[in-house]
This record gives sequence, structure tokens and C-alpha cells, in this order.
Amino acid sequence: MPGRKKIMQITADEDWLIDDSKTLEQAALIDPWNVLIVDDEPDIHQVTRLALGSVQFLGRPLNLLSCYSGHEAVEFLASRDDVALILLDVVMESEEAGLRTARLVREQLGNHRVRIILRTGQPGAAPEREVIESYDINDYKAKTELTRDKLYTAVLGTLRSYRDIMLIEQQRQMLEANRRGLLKVVDASSTIFRLQSMQQFAQGVLEQLQALLFFEQEALYVVVNGAVSAVERDQGMTVLYATGGYADLRGKPLAEADLSRFGPAIDLAIRQGSSVFGHDHFVGFFHSPHGAANLLIIDGPVALSNADRELVELFCRNVAIAFDNLIQHEETDLTQRDIIHRLAEVVETHGQAPGQHKRRVTLLAGLLAEELGWKAHEIAQLQAAVPLYDIGKAAIADAVLRKPATLDEAERHIMETHAALGRDLMGKAGNRTLQLAARIAHQHHERWDGTGYPQGLAGEAIDPAARIVALLDVYDALGHARVHRPPWPREDVLEALRLGRASQFDPAVVDAFFKVLPRVEAIAAQWPDAAYLH
Amino acid sequence: MPGRKKIMQITADEDWLIDDSKTLEQAALIDPWNVLIVDDEPDIHQVTRLALGSVQFLGRPLNLLSCYSGHEAVEFLASRDDVALILLDVVMESEEAGLRTARLVREQLGNHRVRIILRTGQPGAAPEREVIESYDINDYKAKTELTRDKLYTAVLGTLRSYRDIMLIEQQRQMLEANRRGLLKVVDASSTIFRLQSMQQFAQGVLEQLQALLFFEQEALYVVVNGAVSAVERDQGMTVLYATGGYADLRGKPLAEADLSRFGPAIDLAIRQGSSVFGHDHFVGFFHSPHGAANLLIIDGPVALSNADRELVELFCRNVAIAFDNLIQHEETDLTQRDIIHRLAEVVETHGQAPGQHKRRVTLLAGLLAEELGWKAHEIAQLQAAVPLYDIGKAAIADAVLRKPATLDEAERHIMETHAALGRDLMGKAGNRTLQLAARIAHQHHERWDGTGYPQGLAGEAIDPAARIVALLDVYDALGHARVHRPPWPREDVLEALRLGRASQFDPAVVDAFFKVLPRVEAIAAQWPDAAYLH
Repeated sequence: MPGRKKIMQITADEDWLIDDSKTLEQAALIDPWNVLIVDDEPDIHQVTRLALGSVQFLGRPLNLLSCYSGHEAVEFLASRDDVALILLDVVMESEEAGLRTARLVREQLGNHRVRIILRTGQPGAAPEREVIESYDINDYKAKTELTRDKLYTAVLGTLRSYRDIMLIEQQRQMLEANRRGLLKVVDASSTIFRLQSMQQFAQGVLEQLQALLFFEQEALYVVVNGAVSAVERDQGMTVLYATGGYADLRGKPLAEADLSRFGPAIDLAIRQGSSVFGHDHFVGFFHSPHGAANLLIIDGPVALSNADRELVELFCRNVAIAFDNLIQHEETDLTQRDIIHRLAEVVETHGQAPGQHKRRVTLLAGLLAEELGWKAHEIAQLQAAVPLYDIGKAAIADAVLRKPATLDEAERHIMETHAALGRDLMGKAGNRTLQLAARIAHQHHERWDGTGYPQGLAGEAIDPAARIVALLDVYDALGHARVHRPPWPREDVLEALRLGRASQFDPAVVDAFFKVLPRVEAIAAQWPDAAYLH
Repeated sequence: MPGRKKIMQITADEDWLIDDSKTLEQAALIDPWNVLIVDDEPDIHQVTRLALGSVQFLGRPLNLLSCYSGHEAVEFLASRDDVALILLDVVMESEEAGLRTARLVREQLGNHRVRIILRTGQPGAAPEREVIESYDINDYKAKTELTRDKLYTAVLGTLRSYRDIMLIEQQRQMLEANRRGLLKVVDASSTIFRLQSMQQFAQGVLEQLQALLFFEQEALYVVVNGAVSAVERDQGMTVLYATGGYADLRGKPLAEADLSRFGPAIDLAIRQGSSVFGHDHFVGFFHSPHGAANLLIIDGPVALSNADRELVELFCRNVAIAFDNLIQHEETDLTQRDIIHRLAEVVETHGQAPGQHKRRVTLLAGLLAEELGWKAHEIAQLQAAVPLYDIGKAAIADAVLRKPATLDEAERHIMETHAALGRDLMGKAGNRTLQLAARIAHQHHERWDGTGYPQGLAGEAIDPAARIVALLDVYDALGHARVHRPPWPREDVLEALRLGRASQFDPAVVDAFFKVLPRVEAIAAQWPDAAYLH
């Protein structure tokens, strides 16, 4: 966000550290190295300034600051955390004022980053090795030995060390941010087919991208709802992801963010249909194949290498496509189920206005299977197979199938052939779902006591799925109108099921049914015969 | 791999750098700091050994090495890259032998990591500031000023600096590995619904995990094909992902890898059904919900924090689940399409043995739409809608529909009602796919010249999808047997289509058809009426 404190930029002097040109560009924009001189003798301040005044390190000058006592130094350092180096006298307001200052900086202020060079007039008073080990001092010099050259060497060495420490800390933060983002990605991966997981996935990747490519900047990922041509800026734009100080905006309209600074760039990006690099921000613009547009806004100076730029564009493009694919996938699945339910109804009724019998039985079969302890993938397979159980009726003559009265003995015999016909129509399917569908079609009129048709199977010889469908087919058929009769009253239907326990129906299925009856009736109520999914 | 060179472990002395306990544990396992003394006076070697012999830094002792000339030092340093510090004399075989050595180390050997402390007997001969700037020297000492304490301070300071440089380099490599992994993840994300993308996704995540959690180690991710109970070690295990030195094993049987070291741990993991932490390796064991097992093998000492261990387990579990979900998704989609094609055939034929007419027309409609420049999502929608175009035949009386001869005028009139009946059966669907299906059902017997039925629409007033289906329905029907006639010869069929150009059929559709005729016939040949998908 504007005015936010910069901790550190990645900079590097050694060639082997430089991986692209941006680090050097960035280094040029940066504040000087703050060096604090702590000494009670004003002369020392003056001499030091003379010696170091023109020194530069990595193209950045030194900013020499002065304190005249240990007490003043501690107070000063408590107020700012951007001091790179302290040139610290030992004897000031007390014999050990410098050592005390060093200890307070490390222990009380908790500042382990700042480098400390101790300068003493009486080297014997504080033995070098002991002082360095006890007070976390980085260098120890007798004032007498501190020539201009020696001071220069010592300052450069410690500034380099400070730079390294800050770089290590920044890289550590980047790695941690990566780890956090990766955790989100991994967490989302098993259920990436769900919208929520896809959003978490994209958020995780954006966090990693930010850590790797623009650690200092905040980022928003904005999805523009609707076609680009219809977009008025700030209208219909939603913030899909956001990091850092913008995180609270997630899920909110872009208009709620104070982004007036980016307004012209956003307008330009939309008008041009391409990304805009501003001097202190970046607005990436990406089309999804379906014509929706996406914006990625980076708040801060962005000097991306070509490879990084490609990575950002790949992210935005692919997230847009992934969402398109996800939504299309879901639509396709829903549409296919709907088509199957409709076709099954049409088959069963020879083209009469289709009801929702197949859909209700399918949904309720899933509910009962769950109650009976089936696993998720078994339930999914069951629900794919169930709608086909009456497919054999397609081959039953109109005269029998559409007869608006109770069937006579001969007609009933013809009607009963639909079970075996259904199995036959499934063919010799190798697909397990269709094999299951064939078994259900064949066995859904068998009875627990062995008096059903067509095979007279009994008890556990009947396929478990067929036992579930047997009950639900009766339950749903009795409760709804048919060409030759009105629906039965609720209590009569339930009584019929109770009476059929362990004679017509698997007792475990009947028990499960009554255990979840409120949920059964809630689902059934959602799909009356008049209603359609769309 | 065994015996592979360790570059550097992450170690840290400052508290603020330590984020968990593993770094300290690892540090204890590590080699000493190699310090090279380069001096032509044997006394100096002896004095230095006395002064530094007992020194430790971060719990690691110093390993003091000796060279007696600049020439010898350069040769020695060319042979190994694990020297942390050189204590370098200036005047040896020549006046500037030390400075020459420093330059060769930096420029010729390209070693910018090793720290160099120059020790000179004649400080005036080589001015400190000039030497430090020109020769990339880290410290400069007159031998006279080098007390035991001063040497200790200088060595500790430069070792710390070396440690930081190595750490920065390692972190940089970790960040780069993360970037590479992230690129794979991002690249895969748009098509994550495909098996290949899912594999690339998992490979990318594994690379990132490795960079973050076990940078020094190699990793294999192994998928065990089949149920765990059936697994004999090295039988039926495939290496799904692998990093570093194992990368070549990707996609190969685990038996091809020389993993005898891990054999007992793999056996134990499978027997216990849980992960095994060995002293120099880790074998993670994870079940997928469908009962397949997965192994993650890390080659090297692994001391994971609890949080890291959870991340690894989450990865393995979720990748396993994601694959299960993906495969189930594909199976479901394929099964649903198959069911729709079968149902559509059954509807059309009133339960006669179903052929592959609907499937062929659907596949060919996709081909022609592509040739005509339709977009991918439009084609997907078209292919979902096409199978329903004859659904109205469900409501046609058996006597007409199954008549084993040409229909008379009255019968033909009844038959023609199937177009409007099909539209009606689709209901007032809000779903775009079903709306399209309704239009196709209603209009697929319209003719380009306006003489078709039921509405007599002409030219572009006919839905583009219906124009495609109109041609393909005729093409496929003529070329295959019907109850009342044998299939037409190929040339007669094609001639009929040519004759129908711009009279019965949209000329653009006819042209597209003949342009891709070889592909049309290849697809049709794959789905003869006798064949089934499963």
C-alpha cells in the first residue's frame, strides 16, 4: 500500500548472485545505509565523518547518524529498525556504557540484524575475545589502530554482512510465503473439481507468484464479470484474490477498493485489451476464451523479466481457462444427468409427458446407500446406474404399457418381461456401472422372501443395489399418480413398506428408509412430477 | 544419491533465524570448516594452528590445511570447492604471489564464495584499501597486529560471512526450484481435468515440496498399482515422479531403480500401513480411498518438523485422491455419454437391439462443427445435445415405428410428428444445452430450400446445429440397415448428399463433410452397429 515500509530489496554485487537485471535497477532506487556513530567525544564523530563521508557500498551512500551516549543510542535505536551498523565507543557515561548498549540492543530491543563495531580507547579493559563472544559484537577495534583504511575495511565488511543477513531474512520470508501458498495448493488439489477448491488453488498460486516475483508489492486478482465490451470500470468487477494489505477485499466489488491510482491504467488495459506497465504498478489484462476478462493488479514498482512476465500471464490466462473448464464440466455433468433422467422417463412411458420418478428414485437410492454405509464411489456408481432400471419397458407393447387400467394376467406376464429385457438391452457391458445397471434392471422385482420375478431370487442372493431400488420403486410409484389410479395416501404407502419388511423387502433397507424418512420426504418434495431441473 | 556431494546445510546461530529444531540437529552431522593457510614460512603455519586449533564455529571445528606457495594454493583450490577461508600471505615465491593467488582464485577458478584474509609482513607494500577493492579481499591484516584474539575475531567474522553467502546461494536455489515447480503447476492448471496435466501438476508440487522441505535429498513418488494386499515389493510399482538424480526413473517400474537400501523400509511401510522414518531415508506410505497405495521415498536424512510432515502426508494423500477423482470423473462422463447414446437408441427403436446411429451422428457432428469453425465449448454443447434429436420417436406408435416396410402416406404423417414431439418432450428447459437439443429435434428434418417439415424453414432460418444433424442423420441412416431395407452402397450415399447440396442441405455443411470425408469414414468405421463401447 502507498507509504508502506520497505524492509529490504534484493541487491547483489557479486556476479554470481545476479540472475537478471532487475536487482541492479532496483538497487538504484534505494535509501542510503544508515550508520550510527556512538561516542561521547565530538572529535571522533568529526573524524569518522571525514573518513567515511564519501564511501559508497553497492552504489548506495552512507547516511552517518550521531549519538553521544549509550543511553541516547538505545533510545534512538528503539525508534527505528533501519540502522545497518553501529560504530560504538566503550567508555562513555560509564566504564561499560558501550557494552551495556550492545547488550540492550540485542536483548531488550531484540535487534540482531544491526552490525556492531566496538571502538575502544583502552583495549585492555575489555578483552577482545570475551567481548565478542559475550556481547554479539561483530568487530572490535582499538581506536589507535583505526586508520582511515582500517575503518573503511571494517565498515565495508560489516555492511556486506548486514546486506547478507537482510537478504537471508527476505529469502526466508519468501520461502515461508511459498510454503504457505503451496499448502493451499496441496490442500485444494484433491478436490480441484470443486469451485471452492479451484479458488483456494488460485489464491495459493498467487501467493507463491507474489513471493517469487514481486515480494515487496501487494497484488489483487480481479475477475470482471460479463463480457469486456460491457465493462464500465469498477462496475461488475469482483476481487477474486488479494494478498497482503488488500486481503480484506477478497470477494468484494472492486469499487470498494480505493484504487483511484490505478483507474487510468485499468481503463487503458481494458480499452487496449492488453497489459499496462505503470511506473509504480502493473495492470495485467487477460481474456478467457468465453470472453470474460480478468485483471491482475500489482501495487508497486514492477520490473519483471520476460520470463517472469510470461509466468504472470500464464497464471492469469490459465486460471481464467480453468474456471471456464470447471464451470463447463459441472454444467455438462448436470445436463447429462438431466438428459438421462428425462430419457429414462420417456422410455418408460413411451413418450408420455415425463415425470420425475427416475430422478427421485436415483436421489433416494444415494441417500439409503449412504445410510447403509456404502462408500462415496460406490454411491456415485449406484446413482449412475439406477435411472436405467426400467429401460426394458421401452420394448413393451404400447397396448400393455399405456393401458389406462389394471393389467390382466396375460398383460401382466408381458409387462414382467421388462426386467429381463432391461438386462438384455444393457448388452454384455464391460463397464461396471452398466453391469450394475443390468443387475438392477433384472432383479428390481425380486422379493426378499423369494416370491418375486423373474428369477425368484431370495435374501442376499439379490443384488444389494436391486434391493434398495425394489423398495424405492414401490415407495415412489405408490405415492404418485399413474394412468390407471390416483396416488396413495402417505400413511397407506408407509404401511405397505412396513408390511413388506422381510417379506417383499430387505429388512435392513426398510429400517434405513424409516430412519431417514424426513430426509426422504424432503428430497421427494423437491422433485414433484410437474417440476423440472431447468 | 549415495555419496553425492553436500554443498551446504542450512545452519544458523542467531535465534531469529532458527524456525525449528532440525537445523541444529543437522548442523551436528556436518563436516568441519576448511581453512587454508597459505604462507611460505612454516613457523606461521605452526603459530596459526596453535591459535586456531581449538576454535569452533556453530559447533563445527576448523580443519586447518596448509599450502606453502601461491602456486600450490591455486592448484589445491582448483581441486576442491569446500574451502571456507584462506589465510593468505602476500610475499611468497614472488613479491605479489598472494595478490596473484587471490586474483586467480576469483577470476580463473571462478570461486567467489571462499573468504580471503590477507596477512602481510610489509603493510606499506600493498595499500589496504586498494588491495581490498582490486582483489576482492575480505580482510587485510598486518602480521604484526595479528594477536591471537585478533586472528580469532577475523576468522569468526569471515566464517560467518561465508556461512551467510552459502545460505543465500542455497536459498536462491530453493527459490529457483520453487519457481520451476510453480511454472509446472501453473502450466497444468487450465487443463487439470486431464490425466497428463494432473501428472504435471503433481510433479511441480513435488519439486516445490522438495525444495522447501528436503532440499538436499532426492525424492521419488511411487504409485503402487493394485491393492496393497496384492503388493509384492518391486512388483507392480511404478515411479510416477522423481526429482534430481532419480529423474530418469519417471514412468518406469520401481524394480529398475537400485533401491535395495530402501527395501526393508518399503516392506515395513507396506506391512504396517504407515510411514517409516529411517536414519538416512524416509518412506511415506499413503492409502487412496479406493485401496491403491502410494509411496513417497526420500533418499537422505530427513528430520521433518511436525508441520512439514503433515504437508508431505497431505500431498501424498491428496494426489492419490485427486487421481481417484479424476479417473472417476472421466469414467462417469464416459458412462453417462454411453448411457445417453443407448437410451436414445432404445427410445428411437422402442427397445429393439440398439445400434450406434446416435453415437456416430454425435461424433461426426463434432467433427463437422470443428471444420466449420465452431469454438470448443460450442462443440461440447452441440455433442451433448445431438443424441436427443429423435427422442420424439418414443411417442410414435409401435405399428408405425416398427413397421418392417416403407410407410404409407398416413403413417409417414404420423412419423413426421416426432420432430415437434421431440421439442415438446424437452419441456420448457432453461438449460442452454436442452434448448439447443429441442431446436435440433424440431428442425432436423427441415430442408435448405424450405420444403422440409414441420415448419418449412429455409436457409439460415434453420438452426446451424440442425443443419449439421440433417445431413449426418441422412448420411448415417442410408449407409446402415433399417428394418425395411439393407444399407445403401457407399457411392450412392455420397451421391445423394452431393445431389442434396443447396436443395436439401446447407451447402457449407456438405462442403465441410466432403472436405473431411476420410475422417468421417474413419470415425464411422470405429462404431459399427454391432459394436459397443464396453
